[in-house]
Amino acid sequence: MNVSAMNWSQVEAWLQQDDRAILPLGSTEQHAGLSLSVDSILSHKLAIDAAEPTGVPVFPVVPYGLTPYFLGFPGTVSLRVDTYARVIRDILDCLATSGFRRILIVNGHGGNLPSHAVALEWMADHPDVQVRFHNWYNAPKVFAKVQEIDPVASHASWMENFPWTRLEGVAMPPEQKPMIDTAHMRLLSPAKLRAYLGDGNFGGYYQRPDAEMLAIWEVAIAETRELLEGPWA
Amino acid sequence: MNVSAMNWSQVEAWLQQDDRAILPLGSTEQHAGLSLSVDSILSHKLAIDAAEPTGVPVFPVVPYGLTPYFLGFPGTVSLRVDTYARVIRDILDCLATSGFRRILIVNGHGGNLPSHAVALEWMADHPDVQVRFHNWYNAPKVFAKVQEIDPVASHASWMENFPWTRLEGVAMPPEQKPMIDTAHMRLLSPAKLRAYLGDGNFGGYYQRPDAEMLAIWEVAIAETRELLEGPWA
Amino acid sequence: MNVSAMNWSQVEAWLQQDDRAILPLGSTEQHAGLSLSVDSILSHKLAIDAAEPTGVPVFPVVPYGLTPYFLGFPGTVSLRVDTYARVIRDILDCLATSGFRRILIVNGHGGNLPSHAVALEWMADHPDVQVRFHNWYNAPKVFAKVQEIDPVASHASWMENFPWTRLEGVAMPPEQKPMIDTAHMRLLSPAKLRAYLGDGNFGGYYQRPDAEMLAIWEVAIAETRELLEGPWA
Amino acid sequence: MNVSAMNWSQVEAWLQQDDRAILPLGSTEQHAGLSLSVDSILSHKLAIDAAEPTGVPVFPVVPYGLTPYFLGFPGTVSLRVDTYARVIRDILDCLATSGFRRILIVNGHGGNLPSHAVALEWMADHPDVQVRFHNWYNAPKVFAKVQEIDPVASHASWMENFPWTRLEGVAMPPEQKPMIDTAHMRLLSPAKLRAYLGDGNFGGYYQRPDAEMLAIWEVAIAETRELLEGPWA
Amino acid sequence: MNVSAMNWSQVEAWLQQDDRAILPLGSTEQHAGLSLSVDSILSHKLAIDAAEPTGVPVFPVVPYGLTPYFLGFPGTVSLRVDTYARVIRDILDCLATSGFRRILIVNGHGGNLPSHAVALEWMADHPDVQVRFHNWYNAPKVFAKVQEIDPVASHASWMENFPWTRLEGVAMPPEQKPMIDTAHMRLLSPAKLRAYLGDGNFGGYYQRPDAEMLAIWEVAIAETRELLEGPWA
Amino acid sequence: MNVSAMNWSQVEAWLQQDDRAILPLGSTEQHAGLSLSVDSILSHKLAIDAAEPTGVPVFPVVPYGLTPYFLGFPGTVSLRVDTYARVIRDILDCLATSGFRRILIVNGHGGNLPSHAVALEWMADHPDVQVRFHNWYNAPKVFAKVQEIDPVASHASWMENFPWTRLEGVAMPPEQKPMIDTAHMRLLSPAKLRAYLGDGNFGGYYQRPDAEMLAIWEVAIAETRELLEGPWA
Repeated sequence: MNVSAMNWSQVEAWLQQDDRAILPLGSTEQHAGLSLSVDSILSHKLAIDAAEPTGVPVFPVVPYGLTPYFLGFPGTVSLRVDTYARVIRDILDCLATSGFRRILIVNGHGGNLPSHAVALEWMADHPDVQVRFHNWYNAPKVFAKVQEIDPVASHASWMENFPWTRLEGVAMPPEQKPMIDTAHMRLLSPAKLRAYLGDGNFGGYYQRPDAEMLAIWEVAIAETRELLEGPWA
Repeated sequence: MNVSAMNWSQVEAWLQQDDRAILPLGSTEQHAGLSLSVDSILSHKLAIDAAEPTGVPVFPVVPYGLTPYFLGFPGTVSLRVDTYARVIRDILDCLATSGFRRILIVNGHGGNLPSHAVALEWMADHPDVQVRFHNWYNAPKVFAKVQEIDPVASHASWMENFPWTRLEGVAMPPEQKPMIDTAHMRLLSPAKLRAYLGDGNFGGYYQRPDAEMLAIWEVAIAETRELLEGPWA
Repeated sequence: MNVSAMNWSQVEAWLQQDDRAILPLGSTEQHAGLSLSVDSILSHKLAIDAAEPTGVPVFPVVPYGLTPYFLGFPGTVSLRVDTYARVIRDILDCLATSGFRRILIVNGHGGNLPSHAVALEWMADHPDVQVRFHNWYNAPKVFAKVQEIDPVASHASWMENFPWTRLEGVAMPPEQKPMIDTAHMRLLSPAKLRAYLGDGNFGGYYQRPDAEMLAIWEVAIAETRELLEGPWA
Repeated sequence: MNVSAMNWSQVEAWLQQDDRAILPLGSTEQHAGLSLSVDSILSHKLAIDAAEPTGVPVFPVVPYGLTPYFLGFPGTVSLRVDTYARVIRDILDCLATSGFRRILIVNGHGGNLPSHAVALEWMADHPDVQVRFHNWYNAPKVFAKVQEIDPVASHASWMENFPWTRLEGVAMPPEQKPMIDTAHMRLLSPAKLRAYLGDGNFGGYYQRPDAEMLAIWEVAIAETRELLEGPWA
Repeated sequence: MNVSAMNWSQVEAWLQQDDRAILPLGSTEQHAGLSLSVDSILSHKLAIDAAEPTGVPVFPVVPYGLTPYFLGFPGTVSLRVDTYARVIRDILDCLATSGFRRILIVNGHGGNLPSHAVALEWMADHPDVQVRFHNWYNAPKVFAKVQEIDPVASHASWMENFPWTRLEGVAMPPEQKPMIDTAHMRLLSPAKLRAYLGDGNFGGYYQRPDAEMLAIWEVAIAETRELLEGPWA
Repeated sequence: MNVSAMNWSQVEAWLQQDDRAILPLGSTEQHAGLSLSVDSILSHKLAIDAAEPTGVPVFPVVPYGLTPYFLGFPGTVSLRVDTYARVIRDILDCLATSGFRRILIVNGHGGNLPSHAVALEWMADHPDVQVRFHNWYNAPKVFAKVQEIDPVASHASWMENFPWTRLEGVAMPPEQKPMIDTAHMRLLSPAKLRAYLGDGNFGGYYQRPDAEMLAIWEVAIAETRELLEGPWA
C-alpha cells in the first residue's frame, strides 16, 4: 500500500499485525528517449503492484541515486556515495523506530548497489531487523524472461520502455542499436561517455510490443511478491 | 514541467533557451488523518502548477526531510541534518553541472529550513548560480489568505487538507481543535510529543470547504510563479 | 554565572541543586562600523546578565557561526553547515554528560538557525534533556521594543550599536540608510553582496541614544530570564 | 613492481615513461580454517604477479574492507561504508597527484564493491584519469576455470585455499560441505550468521590438489595482466 | 589587535599592508581549582599581548577543543576529532578568503594537537598560505623558564595559575602534589581518571609567587612575538 | 603472532585466555633512497618481533597514514585527517567486538599522531577497553640508543635504514647530510618542501653499520614488549 495514501494511524494499525515494509530506490538519470525518472517509476510502481494484495506499506521512492557517469547528460542528478549511504541509513533507522522489522528494498538502478552494503552494515548494528535487497531488473526470473524475449537488452533499451516510462510525443528509433562495449564505457569521463553513447541507449531495440512488456511486468510482480512473502529468516 | 515527463534531450533543449529549474522539498511525516506525504504532495504539485505556463523543469520532490520530533508517530521518516545538507548540496551541484543557473526551491515543510542555509553556503561556492528559497505555505500572500479565511490554522489542520492530500474513507473530526502550546511542544521528546499532540493536528478545524482551499491554492500558484518569473539578481 | 569564572567543582556543586545551563551562540562577521564580534558579544553578555540572579552557568560563546554570504567582507569567518551541526551536537553531548538537563541556547545570529534543527534532532536522541532555543534579537518582546523605538532597524544598524559593540574612535554616519531589498540580497554571491551592501548596514540609522539601547537591553534581559525560569516541560 | 620495494625516485622515473599503477584491495575476515588475510594476500600477490613483466608499481594492499556480516567471527575487522569510500578517494587523489593516469584496482573481496562506485564517482571528478575495477575472483576467465574444476566453490572453500593462504598445522576437513542458502544468509545478524555458517565455509571441499590451484592462478595472472595491458580508453 | 575590537574595514585596511593573523585555540576543561577556561584565557591573552606592538589581528579564541579524557569532571566540553578538524579547516578557509597568507596558531591545550595535522593538510591544499603552529606552553623558552623556576609543573598546577586564570574566593592547597603517572593515566576511562586525579592537578604546587608567573608570561610573549615576526618561508 | 598467519578460531582460542592485541600503523611516503613503506615495514615487523614470545595477535599494519607535506614526492599517499580518524575508530570498534580489551598501537610515523587523539576519544566511549599508544621510534629507550650511536639522525637518515627497509641495488650517499631547518620546513607547500629537501633525508648519514641498527632494533623490541606486558590499568 502506498504510504502516501496512508496516515500515521493506519501505519500504526498495520504494525499491530505485521512488521513488513518496502522501500523503493530510484534514480534521476538519462534513459535515452524515455523519462529521466525511469528507475524511480519502475521500482515504485513495482513495489506498489507487488504489495497490492498484502497491504504492506510502500514508502516513497528515493528519487535520487548514484549515477556519476551520466552527468554529461542534462537532467541527471547523482548523489555522492557517502550522502547516499547516510540517506539509506537514516531511512532504515526511522523505519525501525516506527516498528518495522522486515524491510524489502526494491532497487531500480544498478548504480545504487552500495546501498546493499549499507543495508548489510546497518543490519549488523540492528540484529533484530531484516533487510532484503532486491534488484528487480536483473533478478533471476525477470532476467530469464527478458532473455527469452530478446537477449539484446540493456539500459534505456526496450526493456525499460513500459507504458509508464515512455513519453507522449517522443518517437522511438525503429532500429536495433548495437551493444556498447561495457568495459570501455567504464573508463570514460562523463563528457566522453556522452559522446560515446550518443542517445544513451546501451544497445538493443528501443521498443517492443506492449504484450511482451506486460508479460515481463507480471513476472517482476510475482518475483518481488515472493520475496515479500518470504520465508524471512 | 515535470522532469519525470521529460527525457534528457528535452532538458538540454530547454537549457538552450532558459536556465531556470525548480526543486521541491517535501517530508514523510504525520499529518493527523491526512496523508503522510502532505508536504511532498503539496510542494511538488505547487511547483508543477506554478511552472505550467513557463515550461520550467520541476525536478522530483525530495520526499524525506527533517522531522525528528515526529518520530513517535509511525510512518514518519527523518533524515539527519548533515545527511540532508549533503543531499541538497549534491542535487544543486548536479543541477549546476546540467547548466541551470537560477533554481527555485519550493519547500513544503518548516523543519527543512536548514536547507536554506545550505543553499546560501552553496551559492557562496558557486557565485554564478542563484538559488531562491521559497517556503510556500507561509509566504506573505498565502499566509494572508489563510488568515483571511480562518486564523486558527496550523500543521495538519484544515490548511493542509486539500483534495489531493486527504485520504479516501478517512473521516475528519468536525470540531475545532484548540491550538497547542508551541513553546511547550518544542521541549518534548518524540514520545512525549506524541502523547501531547494526540492525533497530530496542532490546532484548528480539520477541514474547510473546497472552495476556500482552491482559493488558497490559486494564491499559492500566483505567488510561486511570481518568484519564478523574477526579477532574479 | 560565567563558566570562565568557575572551576569544575563549582559546576558540580551547581548540578547537585539545579540542572540548567546556557549556551550562547555568536558569529564573527561584518557589522558595518561595529565590532566583527557583535553577535558573540551580545549573546554572551545577554546570557550572563539574564542568568545573573539565578547562578545558572553560562558556557563560552561559540564565536564562529554560519555566515557564508558575508565572506566578501574581510574578517568574516563562516563554518560549514555540517561543521556547525557537529559542534552543536558535541557540546550538547558534553553538557548532558556533565549532568545538565535543561539547556537554554541564546542565539545572536539569524544565520545560525540550523542549530535549532540540530538541537531538535539531538533532543530526539536524548529524550531526558530539554533544549530551549532563543533568538534573543527577534523574540516577541525585544522585537516590539525595537519597533516602538524605530521600525527601520536591521543588521548592523543602530539596533546592534550598544556601548559594548561599538568601537572606540569609529564615527558612525549620521544619516538613515534606506532599507536594502532582502529578497534581492539573498540571490547575490559574496562579492556582489559586498558591492550591493556598501558598508554592510542593511538599513536604518547607525546609532541612537544610549537610553534607548539600554531600554532594549532591559527588555532582552527580562525576556531571556523568563525563558530560563520556565516553565520547562 | 611492489611499491614497498621502490623508493620515490624510482616511482618518479617510472612516471616519466608510463602512467599505470595497481591498487589491490583486501579484507581481514574469517575464511574458515584459512588465513584471516586471504583476500589481502590474494589480491596483493596477484597484482604483483600480473605486473611482474611490466614494471607497473603495485601499491600496498588496503588490508581492511567491508565485511560487517562476519563480525561474529573473532579477528574480523570491517570498516564503515563511508570510511571506506573516503579511503579509496584519498588514495586515488594521491595517485593522481603523483602523476598516475591509469589505475587498475584489483579487488579480492565481494563486500568491497562500493569501492567501484566510489571509483566511478571519483573519475567523474577527475576526467583525465581512468580507473579500471577488477574483481579477480569472479572475472570471466577465472570463473570459468573454477567451474571447470569444481562448480561447488565459494567463500572459504577450496577455491581460496592456495599454498599462500593456508596455515601451517591447520588440517582441512576432508568432506564437501553443502552449499549454504545465500538468500537466507543475507538476512542474518552477525551472531546468527556465525551460528548458521559453522566454520565459515559457504560450501564445497576445503582443499583440492595444488596443481588445480596453480592452474587457476595462472588464469588469474593472465586475465589481470590483460586488463593492465589494455586497451585503456 | 583583538578582532573583536575591529570592524571589517579595519581588517581590510590591515590586509592592504600586511597578511598576518593569529588564531588562538583554547579548551573548556577541568583545571582543578582554576577556571574551566584556563586554556582559552591563556592562548587568547598571550596572542593579544604578543601581537600588541605589531597590530596583527587576533581572531576569537576557539573555546572548545579536544579533551575526552576529562569528561568525568563536570563543566568539561570536548569536541570530536573530526568536528574539530572541520572547525580548523573552515576557519583557515575563511582567513585565506579574507586575504591572510601567514597565520600563527597559538595553541593552549595539548589535546588540540590534531589541529596541527589539519593545518599541515590544509597547507598542502593551499600552497600560497603559511600556517605556523605554536604550542606556547611547552615551546623551548617557556619550557626552560618553567623548569628554571620549578621542574615539578604540570596540568592545573602553579604553572597555569596566573592572575587571569585564578578565581576569586577559591583557596589553593598549600602543598606540592606528587606527580601522577602519565602512562597509567592514559589508559583510564573518564570515570577512572577522575577518581585517579582527585582535584585534577597532575602534580606540583598549586601556586607560586606572581613575580615568577609574570616572568614566565614575559618569556611567552617574547617567544610568541618572535614567531609572529618571522622569518616566515 | 601475525594475524595473517591465524584463522578466526585461533583468534577465538586466544581470546579465551587473554585480551591483548597489537595494531601497527604505517605510512606510504618518501624516505629518500629507502623503501616508500619504511614506516609500515618497521612498525609491523617490530610488533611481530615484540609479540613473538607472548602470542599476542598482531593485526595487519594500516599502510596509509597522514603525510600531506610529502605529496610532492611521487609514490606518497596521504589520507585526510578525518578519513584516518574513521579508519582508526572502525578498527578499534571491531577489535572490541571481537573481544579484545587491551590494545597496543605501535605507530611508525610521526604524522599519524592524531590517531592517538582518536584512540583517547574512542576510549572515553568504551570505558572497558584500554588502548596504549606507542611511537616506537622516539620512545625513551630507542631515542636514547639512537642518540648514543649518532645524535644526527632523522627522517630517512641512517636511523631508518635497516636491512629490511633498504632496497637492493640502491646505493646510499656516503656523506652526512646537514640537518634541515624543521621550523622552516613546516611552512612549506609540498612543492617547495620537495625542492627544499632534495632527496628527502632530513639530516644525518644515510647508513651506519648493521650491528648498530640491530642494537637499536633489540632496544625497540624490548621497549615495545615491556609496554605489551604491562602493567595495564
